[in-house]
Amino acid sequence: MARYFIEVAYLGTSFNGFQIQDNQLTIQGEINRALSLVLKQEIQTTTSSRTDAGVHAYQNFLHFDTEKPLTNKTIYSINAIVHKDLVVKNIYAVELNNHSRFDATGRKYSYHVIQEKNPFLKDTAYFFPFPIDVKLMNEAAKLLIGKFDFTSFSKRNTDVNNYFCTIDLAYWEVHKNSITFHIQSNRFLRGMVRAIVATLLQVGRRKISIRDFQSIIDSKDCTKADFSAEGCGLFLEEVKYNIPLVPLELLK
Amino acid sequence: MARYFIEVAYLGTSFNGFQIQDNQLTIQGEINRALSLVLKQEIQTTTSSRTDAGVHAYQNFLHFDTEKPLTNKTIYSINAIVHKDLVVKNIYAVELNNHSRFDATGRKYSYHVIQEKNPFLKDTAYFFPFPIDVKLMNEAAKLLIGKFDFTSFSKRNTDVNNYFCTIDLAYWEVHKNSITFHIQSNRFLRGMVRAIVATLLQVGRRKISIRDFQSIIDSKDCTKADFSAEGCGLFLEEVKYNIPLVPLELLK
Repeated sequence: MARYFIEVAYLGTSFNGFQIQDNQLTIQGEINRALSLVLKQEIQTTTSSRTDAGVHAYQNFLHFDTEKPLTNKTIYSINAIVHKDLVVKNIYAVELNNHSRFDATGRKYSYHVIQEKNPFLKDTAYFFPFPIDVKLMNEAAKLLIGKFDFTSFSKRNTDVNNYFCTIDLAYWEVHKNSITFHIQSNRFLRGMVRAIVATLLQVGRRKISIRDFQSIIDSKDCTKADFSAEGCGLFLEEVKYNIPLVPLELLK
Repeated sequence: MARYFIEVAYLGTSFNGFQIQDNQLTIQGEINRALSLVLKQEIQTTTSSRTDAGVHAYQNFLHFDTEKPLTNKTIYSINAIVHKDLVVKNIYAVELNNHSRFDATGRKYSYHVIQEKNPFLKDTAYFFPFPIDVKLMNEAAKLLIGKFDFTSFSKRNTDVNNYFCTIDLAYWEVHKNSITFHIQSNRFLRGMVRAIVATLLQVGRRKISIRDFQSIIDSKDCTKADFSAEGCGLFLEEVKYNIPLVPLELLK
């Protein structure tokens, strides 16, 4: 038996989220279906980062076990079968005790905001037409850097036993047609990036002061943050591992 | 009575082409509908460049006449009404004898090709997975520069009386995830860019030599070119005018 990490990218718009659900099109469901067809045995994957409905990923991982030999051709075969909005970028051999979720040491997300109607970004950016002060939003974003209890920016009913996250990066970048928020942390709580983004946008609109933003963090109360930023603007950019990932083409 | 040019951009995927048709979603149909609603009178537009179904535009124009006063707010009102895949970028006052099609002095198109499955470019690039030699394609593209009869790259049954076009620019550019063909001409014939692209891709695959490509141009026979490049890769980038276009915000 051998364990493999499967690296995927997807446009989330057409999927009912990441995690497998009966009779629903999901990323995990599609990957399980394609792997099972190609390997001619039932494959159940385990997921690294369960993105919400409408959220996209340039990089996400799942893992699975099989005794069947895998080759580069396996990747082509899977890509010929899975939904057009989903692509398998690579498959890596790992140790049998490696785990795509528990071995992840960090994740990086981006969130895109457009301020003018843009047909080309309608599924991949959040339309927020109000005037905003990005400098102010970047000042507030600096307050997120460090290890804090982020209960204020998490949805309830999560299955975690603490809300501490260590955020390394959090800043806004201005592009020609959009502004992008970048955030990197050792872990993320449910709804966390979207809540941070929506609340920072209220700072940008001067509805919330920098001092209020600090109070929201400190309050550990999730009723104070704004959770209105849509899923369509969110991209999982990267999942980081400190374990060796051996690409299929280097096997043997 | 005053004449206006209306500048639009659109993702063509959901539209049944540009030109108005009964009971079909088209760019012109949507613009007529929105203008008529906002100006509270029936408006019929005349089109500059009739792009095919699935083809996109970063810039295209239509013109219309009205005696009603237009303001910047008119643009906002139209954008609130028209389909999400279509945006009005600006409206310009022109002379009553100006014409969005006949006064255009040139147009610029781009065509995007991807060689690996990419969910993020599925509607805006043509998937062509075969190995290609872009250097060879650029050598062949140079043969297009100049004033020639381009019958070979035009669909039949067009309503033009000659097939001469003066091409100023024609080259391929290599990007990280795609390759892009850029072409600029005083005019374009029906299906011309897609036929040139598909035929150049055959040069890239070494199915057609540079000498054969020249023979196809010289033959003035549209059965020799390849017309298989899909509409989804094509973008109208720019329509050029040598007449004054006065933006609404500068009026009065």
